[in-house]
Amino acid sequence: MPRIASEDDFLALLDVHFPRTGAGVVVSRGDDAAVIACPPQLCVTTDLFVEDVHFRRRYFTPGQIGAKALAVNVSDVAAMGAVPTGFVLGLVCPDDADRDYWDALVAGMAGVAARHQVPLVGGDLSKGEKIAVSVTVWGAPGPSGRFLTRGSGAPGDVLVVVGDLGLARVGLAVLEKDGLAAAADWPAAVAAHLAPVPRLEAGLALAACHGVTACLDVSDGLARDLPRLLPPNCGADLFFTPASLHPEVTAHAAGHGRPPEKVAFFGGEDYALLATVAPAALPTLRAALPEAKAIGRVTATPGYTLNGAAINERGFDHFG
Amino acid sequence: MPRIASEDDFLALLDVHFPRTGAGVVVSRGDDAAVIACPPQLCVTTDLFVEDVHFRRRYFTPGQIGAKALAVNVSDVAAMGAVPTGFVLGLVCPDDADRDYWDALVAGMAGVAARHQVPLVGGDLSKGEKIAVSVTVWGAPGPSGRFLTRGSGAPGDVLVVVGDLGLARVGLAVLEKDGLAAAADWPAAVAAHLAPVPRLEAGLALAACHGVTACLDVSDGLARDLPRLLPPNCGADLFFTPASLHPEVTAHAAGHGRPPEKVAFFGGEDYALLATVAPAALPTLRAALPEAKAIGRVTATPGYTLNGAAINERGFDHFG
Repeated sequence: MPRIASEDDFLALLDVHFPRTGAGVVVSRGDDAAVIACPPQLCVTTDLFVEDVHFRRRYFTPGQIGAKALAVNVSDVAAMGAVPTGFVLGLVCPDDADRDYWDALVAGMAGVAARHQVPLVGGDLSKGEKIAVSVTVWGAPGPSGRFLTRGSGAPGDVLVVVGDLGLARVGLAVLEKDGLAAAADWPAAVAAHLAPVPRLEAGLALAACHGVTACLDVSDGLARDLPRLLPPNCGADLFFTPASLHPEVTAHAAGHGRPPEKVAFFGGEDYALLATVAPAALPTLRAALPEAKAIGRVTATPGYTLNGAAINERGFDHFG
Repeated sequence: MPRIASEDDFLALLDVHFPRTGAGVVVSRGDDAAVIACPPQLCVTTDLFVEDVHFRRRYFTPGQIGAKALAVNVSDVAAMGAVPTGFVLGLVCPDDADRDYWDALVAGMAGVAARHQVPLVGGDLSKGEKIAVSVTVWGAPGPSGRFLTRGSGAPGDVLVVVGDLGLARVGLAVLEKDGLAAAADWPAAVAAHLAPVPRLEAGLALAACHGVTACLDVSDGLARDLPRLLPPNCGADLFFTPASLHPEVTAHAAGHGRPPEKVAFFGGEDYALLATVAPAALPTLRAALPEAKAIGRVTATPGYTLNGAAINERGFDHFG
């Protein structure tokens, strides 16, 4: 189990997995700053991925850690209806992981980067007691030429979701309880927690549909993210049918005596896209994006209903 | 000592100190990603600032932590000869710091941001066991229209430095030994470690001088950073006179029986700018930037001499 011998050794490891060139890369890794060629506007987002807060080494492979740290950032770019065009990486490295561990972590991240053709143009390394990954990614508008933002919908808009709400939260619950053995019974839920997939194509399809008025990626759970999506002083009526929930969400809820729609509502780390759509545009959107599911409607007054009942609980808060 | 009550409470605290608007900010904090207006090229850099690796709470005020975390990133933009135009922030927050602590940390960072008119456009918060600050900053070329990079000098170029090499390293040594009491005897050294100043104006002056061929900011010490500045297969002859060293560096070296030029050579966290300059351009540069000190010359063959003696030791390495 060889250790990382030096910073240069770690940088050499990055060079094995990440090409130094890429579209728009003028000066790549190795200078005080990278230089990138820019369109008139870029979107930019940053997310932390911290051991024992966002992930556990006990049931994440190092490759999954590296992949998810980048994927959750790319998901934010997807929610803007944009295409990621570059990223930088900050990595806090404890002593208790060897060179093979870092090699696998970096390889997992590089897989996501290669899949979406996002070049790594810079970064910083530090020692520390727990693994922490900081990624900042930027992106350009897709063919639509626009970025999707939040809060710009209107009462009457339909709420559509792409992805399975509550599924990753079920995955976290079963992984915490039974570790990787849980994958036998809950394969989709475990995969949703360990290996979320950023929905870039869906984001582009949403941006291309003129009737889509706002979008975000559900990362803190619908309960917390829905208010961030809605226009000011509006609310929503939500409806989850069995057909709109993943069978593992329904099964896990049934096993715990919870209404499945509440599991979907509170969720967390769903990395699903949630959008508001003018009703007239719904057929066009459905044709372009068949996996978009209607789960409710924006109301002209504040407050939320879930399958007809008022609901006012809040979701997960790092500081709550 | 009230605690941070929620993520919204922390975000409200950011809103007190950081304006949401700024030049080039199209969509500010609060969406999945910010949207920024871009020139044809941007430089982008990221740096981590981690408790007990880069700083100690024992002798840093929270305001100094926030300020230095941003300043060291701005220093990388300065080394590109550029002007910072925006940044995002990742903050790992332990439970053992109260709301006043975070308020002071954020205020310190906001002071640096306001001084350089750099808007904070996004970020991410996480719990964690130690404070960690991840900053990604980007910048546009100054009036010169160019970015300064590394490695593009030539044998015969003069090495110039703006800032005091070794001074911050002396500050770290006396702070580790005597805590803040050390400030009485070593005020400049302690200030250099606790509150480094990014040399943006000097970076712009270097970029504006056509004869400046390459530049970087000395953050890991001259011993490690000099090879990164020099053109391939070149070396350097370095000369430090008493006039080119800070008196506190000379005094600390004398007190420990070390040659002062070696303290300057190994240094660390200097955040000085080091550039290569064609000899013919030196008078022009000196007129524009009187604080630039010549400390040596690029040689056509590898290897380094320090005040006439060969030197081949390496400097600090996080993984060494």
